Amino acid sequence: MSANGVSTTQGRNAWKANVTVPIQYFDLDERFELEGGGYLPELRIAYCTYGTLNDHGDNVIWVCHALTANSDPQDWWNGFWGGGRLFDPERYFIVCANIIGSCYGSTGPDHVNPETGTRYGSTFPLITIGDVVRAFRKLRDDLGINHIELILGGSMGGQQALEWAVQEPEAIGHLCAIATNAHHSPWGIAFNEAQRLALMADPTYLHESPNAGEKGLIAARSIGMISYRNFHTYQISQSDIVPVLQDHRAATYQRYQGLKLSNRFTPLAYLSLSRTMDSHHLARGRESISSALASIQAKSLIIGIDTDILFPAAELDALARSIPNAHFELIHSDYGHDGFLLEYDVLHPLILNFMQDSTS
Amino acid sequence: MSANGVSTTQGRNAWKANVTVPIQYFDLDERFELEGGGYLPELRIAYCTYGTLNDHGDNVIWVCHALTANSDPQDWWNGFWGGGRLFDPERYFIVCANIIGSCYGSTGPDHVNPETGTRYGSTFPLITIGDVVRAFRKLRDDLGINHIELILGGSMGGQQALEWAVQEPEAIGHLCAIATNAHHSPWGIAFNEAQRLALMADPTYLHESPNAGEKGLIAARSIGMISYRNFHTYQISQSDIVPVLQDHRAATYQRYQGLKLSNRFTPLAYLSLSRTMDSHHLARGRESISSALASIQAKSLIIGIDTDILFPAAELDALARSIPNAHFELIHSDYGHDGFLLEYDVLHPLILNFMQDSTS
Repeated sequence: MSANGVSTTQGRNAWKANVTVPIQYFDLDERFELEGGGYLPELRIAYCTYGTLNDHGDNVIWVCHALTANSDPQDWWNGFWGGGRLFDPERYFIVCANIIGSCYGSTGPDHVNPETGTRYGSTFPLITIGDVVRAFRKLRDDLGINHIELILGGSMGGQQALEWAVQEPEAIGHLCAIATNAHHSPWGIAFNEAQRLALMADPTYLHESPNAGEKGLIAARSIGMISYRNFHTYQISQSDIVPVLQDHRAATYQRYQGLKLSNRFTPLAYLSLSRTMDSHHLARGRESISSALASIQAKSLIIGIDTDILFPAAELDALARSIPNAHFELIHSDYGHDGFLLEYDVLHPLILNFMQDSTS
Repeated sequence: MSANGVSTTQGRNAWKANVTVPIQYFDLDERFELEGGGYLPELRIAYCTYGTLNDHGDNVIWVCHALTANSDPQDWWNGFWGGGRLFDPERYFIVCANIIGSCYGSTGPDHVNPETGTRYGSTFPLITIGDVVRAFRKLRDDLGINHIELILGGSMGGQQALEWAVQEPEAIGHLCAIATNAHHSPWGIAFNEAQRLALMADPTYLHESPNAGEKGLIAARSIGMISYRNFHTYQISQSDIVPVLQDHRAATYQRYQGLKLSNRFTPLAYLSLSRTMDSHHLARGRESISSALASIQAKSLIIGIDTDILFPAAELDALARSIPNAHFELIHSDYGHDGFLLEYDVLHPLILNFMQDSTS
């Protein structure tokens, strides 16, 4: 076994207690060239699978996770699971792989660089969404998958799903992209930059101790939380009962959410993934966004959330209009962007019907 | 002269170059009791005046400034100035005082506490909007003002204007409150808490050096900027011309705005003022918000901005409905909350007409 996969920050992997299947690892036996010009000397991809691949290698649902999630969608998209539901392991071979740069098993900045024998740390290169998809395609080949019946993702997961559908139009039967975009917006980049500035204001973020960069990561996540919700969400859930002078409920909530993430994630992984998200642009290296989207062959379901301030519904609507065989749905949520992780009652039947209608 | 007014962070007062009139100082010759239970051993208020107070002491426009502004509204509300315009020193005696806790002359955390002989620093007490208004009323008395013909403020300035109109219903003839609220919203508090977490993630924020807390303050301001604009603003002004991998224009803009503030403001003042803003609640110590607003006697013009995500227009509309003699106007801006500092072409005639109609 190679040196990769050896994370230097084991203390922050509390999420593993929630993983419902064993994590598997794919190690690429050559260096992995990156869109930005550098390379990873070796590449490990952590992933989970459910169900059995059929003889044709085509009963596949590939799930793409968002920023701080892991390779187990039973952990964070549990409402889609079960017999007769969308994620039915009796019917589908379901795969989810951890994004490069994360701290949940795939090669990331907390890993040891085999060329130097020390942790990547701040030398970890920029990974683009295009890199992530090219890496996942190697895993796909290794698993013997010939065709992906459905690729599905929300937020940064949707960015990967779209990029894949553009990289390999013929490889994907159905595409479902939720609360995402064709290129990361200036507004989204501003939110991410504010988070990076907060994270790096804490000079311990490059340390190798278990609590390295904790204050910065708490601050960064508290900014992220704002973008995942909206005015109304805070109004209905974080209002004070009586007019207090300080320690307002909304402030306590920000600290709680920050600490919760800091206990399960690393500052370097957070930095890396936010830069990956900002790099998302379907037109880079291609003629234009519209021509890239026009090349998608998958039957597509594009879902926007009416209260999402980070990925406004208008972006999703425009996305759907540019994909040849796409249907747009606008759903309601009180929870803004986070609706893509919460609104199962609406999302599940929408996606299930989409699959049934377009495969019958 | 007492020890107050002696700021330990002179290096960050670059804004003073823009001040158009001499700053004056009012020193209270007794300790100033605070709503939160503590006190300031002495109180200094920095302020600017324009024009001449008439014999009746009632030709007064009192301007309340927002978070990081100063006591010179010619510096930051220049579009209202000049003969025949709203801020006409030939007609009005115009006053603007610096909020307590700021770094622009009034007593603040960068000042020396005369009881200890050392800088207040982290011991600076919580100042509420109610405290700010009670302090300004002492200055008002000292200036010989009998009646305020118009009190005007946007954002945190509007919070002061509203609080004053509730504290002294009979003292104010006209109230104009723009892009503000009756209590600071959970959403606004979440934005402020994220900024405080970012600021305090930089362990140098309590230092007494000229660059103390610079990284934290840059991060904090970059969060604030997001709340002052919106998706559309960034889309039209911070989009990349070509799809770059990193150093996106929106990210550069965040750093630029953060640095710009850091060069003219101090981290301790920023912390203090953001807590003051969060404390704003017209119902604290009173029966309810609606009864507080119902007590306002001033003729009132309440202005909302259609694209303001920090103080949504619906808040302003509700505010106007609760004030007995109020008119609500919704204006358009491409710049979100910052519209209150930019949309002179709409704001100026609105406010001028309001004054002319209701005084004729």
